[in-house]
Amino acid sequence: MRKENVSGQGFKCSANYTALTPLSHIARAAEVFASGDAISYGTIRWTWAEVTNRCARMASALRSAGVTRGDVVSTVLPNIPAAIEAHFSVPMAGAVLNAINTRLDDVAIAYILGHAESKIIFVDSQHIDLVERAMSHMNGDGPTIIECPDTEAGWQPTGRYPIYDDLIEKSEALEQWHYPEDEWDSIALNYTSGTTGNPKGVLYHHRGAYLTTTGAVISWEMGIKPRYLSIVPQFHCNAWCHIWTMPLVGGTIVCCRDISAKVIFDALADQNVSHFGCAPIVLNMLIHADPAERREFTQPGSVVTAGAPPAPSTIKGAEALGLKIKQVYGLTETFGHISEALEQPDWKLLGDDQRYAQMARIGVRFPTMEGLDVADPETGKMVPWDGTTTGEIVIRGNSVMKGYFKNDTATEESFKGGWFWSGDIGVRYPDGYISITDRTKDIIISGGENISSVEIENVLMQHPDVSLCAVVAKPDEKWGEVPCAFVELLDGRQVSRDVLVAFCREHLAGFKCPKDVRFETLPKTSTGKVQKFELRRSLK
Amino acid sequence: MRKENVSGQGFKCSANYTALTPLSHIARAAEVFASGDAISYGTIRWTWAEVTNRCARMASALRSAGVTRGDVVSTVLPNIPAAIEAHFSVPMAGAVLNAINTRLDDVAIAYILGHAESKIIFVDSQHIDLVERAMSHMNGDGPTIIECPDTEAGWQPTGRYPIYDDLIEKSEALEQWHYPEDEWDSIALNYTSGTTGNPKGVLYHHRGAYLTTTGAVISWEMGIKPRYLSIVPQFHCNAWCHIWTMPLVGGTIVCCRDISAKVIFDALADQNVSHFGCAPIVLNMLIHADPAERREFTQPGSVVTAGAPPAPSTIKGAEALGLKIKQVYGLTETFGHISEALEQPDWKLLGDDQRYAQMARIGVRFPTMEGLDVADPETGKMVPWDGTTTGEIVIRGNSVMKGYFKNDTATEESFKGGWFWSGDIGVRYPDGYISITDRTKDIIISGGENISSVEIENVLMQHPDVSLCAVVAKPDEKWGEVPCAFVELLDGRQVSRDVLVAFCREHLAGFKCPKDVRFETLPKTSTGKVQKFELRRSLK
Repeated sequence: MRKENVSGQGFKCSANYTALTPLSHIARAAEVFASGDAISYGTIRWTWAEVTNRCARMASALRSAGVTRGDVVSTVLPNIPAAIEAHFSVPMAGAVLNAINTRLDDVAIAYILGHAESKIIFVDSQHIDLVERAMSHMNGDGPTIIECPDTEAGWQPTGRYPIYDDLIEKSEALEQWHYPEDEWDSIALNYTSGTTGNPKGVLYHHRGAYLTTTGAVISWEMGIKPRYLSIVPQFHCNAWCHIWTMPLVGGTIVCCRDISAKVIFDALADQNVSHFGCAPIVLNMLIHADPAERREFTQPGSVVTAGAPPAPSTIKGAEALGLKIKQVYGLTETFGHISEALEQPDWKLLGDDQRYAQMARIGVRFPTMEGLDVADPETGKMVPWDGTTTGEIVIRGNSVMKGYFKNDTATEESFKGGWFWSGDIGVRYPDGYISITDRTKDIIISGGENISSVEIENVLMQHPDVSLCAVVAKPDEKWGEVPCAFVELLDGRQVSRDVLVAFCREHLAGFKCPKDVRFETLPKTSTGKVQKFELRRSLK
Repeated sequence: MRKENVSGQGFKCSANYTALTPLSHIARAAEVFASGDAISYGTIRWTWAEVTNRCARMASALRSAGVTRGDVVSTVLPNIPAAIEAHFSVPMAGAVLNAINTRLDDVAIAYILGHAESKIIFVDSQHIDLVERAMSHMNGDGPTIIECPDTEAGWQPTGRYPIYDDLIEKSEALEQWHYPEDEWDSIALNYTSGTTGNPKGVLYHHRGAYLTTTGAVISWEMGIKPRYLSIVPQFHCNAWCHIWTMPLVGGTIVCCRDISAKVIFDALADQNVSHFGCAPIVLNMLIHADPAERREFTQPGSVVTAGAPPAPSTIKGAEALGLKIKQVYGLTETFGHISEALEQPDWKLLGDDQRYAQMARIGVRFPTMEGLDVADPETGKMVPWDGTTTGEIVIRGNSVMKGYFKNDTATEESFKGGWFWSGDIGVRYPDGYISITDRTKDIIISGGENISSVEIENVLMQHPDVSLCAVVAKPDEKWGEVPCAFVELLDGRQVSRDVLVAFCREHLAGFKCPKDVRFETLPKTSTGKVQKFELRRSLK
């Protein structure tokens, strides 16, 4: 019974083998959840039959625009219907979706568009100027713009580009969708701030996207026909793969352009939202909302939260609102969540503080993952489950990226020893649960957004008065973390905190600028390397 | 972005690629559901940590007994803990599980053991005699028996064979489990009554077993830690893959050696059972149970039922007991269920009779399946969705078998045109739901068991007074279907119904014998072929 295609052992054919892809989910949803709501936004209520048809038309339009297999299609979009649809229309056309963070500045976007060799870009009317500025930095033509005016939110078309809905209107639905020949084919390319200034392109395979959707339903105990509020930006791991998950269970995606306590409470009260993901900062926003914005809701709301461990007050406050909270953890490289603070039966017996402490750990591996552990970076050996020995969190399984696009060195480095090395430092407790204690990578996670320390340092070093600097994460009650810059000035120079921050603002997106600047001599190793862990420790 | 292992496109390694296999579920359960109940039976309460350890020890014992990759290990077991564990220990050792129907007779079992080239067989003490008789029919030695005495049910060891629990006791847990090198490797070999007398061996791949488990959780809206009652025999599609599903969600398998209304009510009342699968006949048994056997239970019980469409009275009665019913449909060739009568929101608005009629259809394809349709067997074209045009039900997706073991002709026949041809005749309604109307294969499904008409006909034809016969399915309120024999006698001969049935009993397992015998001239085509559809029609 050993070999393939050996007589008497059966054989692979389309009856018994299909490459795993989230496209299967939307094809099935169009059949079995045809009349169920797929997208709800403003006055829009589109069924799965309608959305599938719209996506197949847009796929056809992309083909007509010259998009062929493996081409990259980018988006600069908030969580509006066009962004949801792009998750299906782009792979239907055989292309790779590159959802770009709308908060990036023009230089970063130009870098991504160039690196990804993007052919087409869907742009929300609000962000057209930003993308035009980005394209002005590029050599060559850059991608062709398709404009997505969000008239529900009052954004009218500029008149300068073909309109997304017009193209759908004009096109016939693509009959032969492009299903991947190999489930290892790329479905998405997501750029993440790395330890170097330039973001790295993380390649997602169809197989991992598919399996992450099944894991999400199982872990989240989702049931059929959830009503999902799209708070997690779709440019963060494709909303943790939740967009691809919804057709699997016939769910409704309630779109959410701008996040505010009012918008979320209204969605809970009026749209019967049952599930959403968010950073803890969003939960705090709800907890501290103005009484006028609060609304009652009766359905159980189930929340997965990531980006920072939820504070006890956050868990307590969210539970008081009627939300069930579970911390999850993951990275862009892992299709979003690959661990969960899975509740154990005996937690119910604990006092609040102890229970919150259990819940604030990143927990155990997701249903679809093969391994989550804490390894000694020197020896590669796993640390004992003692809750004190630190090591780097390592991850293994089918929901890990193919690698970094055009960066084999970084791919090899991140996969050494057959594990993905997360860059997060943690400990493992006797019950097998893992907590994060520190970070090896120079990343600051602020309000759920990754910020590269090195990128900020590179800017500060351009200032004529700065001799040396180091930027590290400073704990922050509201944002989780904020960038804090430690600066040594050149002999005899003087410059104020405000001047340095203003200088950063000229070169960086606002959310990346240091919120705190300290002038002091930096701690260094005997070889002169800055000891960032000492700086981080000084801020705790 | 097109090719594998092209520079800059990432690469496959153990960090991001693992062959899909249900073994991943039990490895994870041992980690994240370690102290949760895995198996409950009589006085037995074993956690996932314990069961995983026991399976790894048995895997080690199998290796010591000479089992190597791709060898077949058979079982003749009721749904006792050893049968559950075999689903993990056998693949852990790299072997292929062959769970044999305990109701078969010695000749059929001998055929299967020989055809499967089985190396080891786990046998319940009650069935030792049966297996010994089977082995006496075999050429050569046949498999080595490992005896599983079910002392919880009073079955003591015969003393003639090594004992299952002793081997576990004596063995060290296998450290390096055998994970499949290729997810297309075989995990199980399940024999099914075909249209010919000899059963066909259906090969299951690890990939399909894994994906069926995710589909089962999603379709069944199962949640974490279900309490599953093992009514579906594990020798039917590995209990519809439910055994492999339980570690994925940390569920408890409540074992059930013999099925009775009392056993099931007790499990619902005392064991807090939340989920089970069964044939409609089992639901009828509960509905018509003796008042003394009935027990109250408060948790919602969720049931998937298959083998025959549930009658309106069955659905009504089961719902009155507090059970939520969903019909599913599948075949041995499809790892069990691949369709479901998924409830649509507007069914709630229907009157009972209309709602029951919707629920009695086999419905739409399962979450993990790519296609379920009704095709014209002549042209291969799909029939219109009109509820009247009949065709053969065809199936496509990753939960379809590799093929029939050592029978390429049958495999090719069943996969013609890239679909699996089910042998069931059906129609498709305007809402896309499918109903079964007839069967092309000479199979009778009685109490959830497949019976080959041809096998019974072959026996009847051996009777000296019989000239011609045809056996077809007769609708039966209790069993769903029973075999009905139509017989033409040789000129001048006379034989009673009872004599013919007694003759069958000498050559066939009891459940296969005709429950009705009719003496009449058989309807034939112009070429002399018996028109079975006419006979079936005469019984409706």
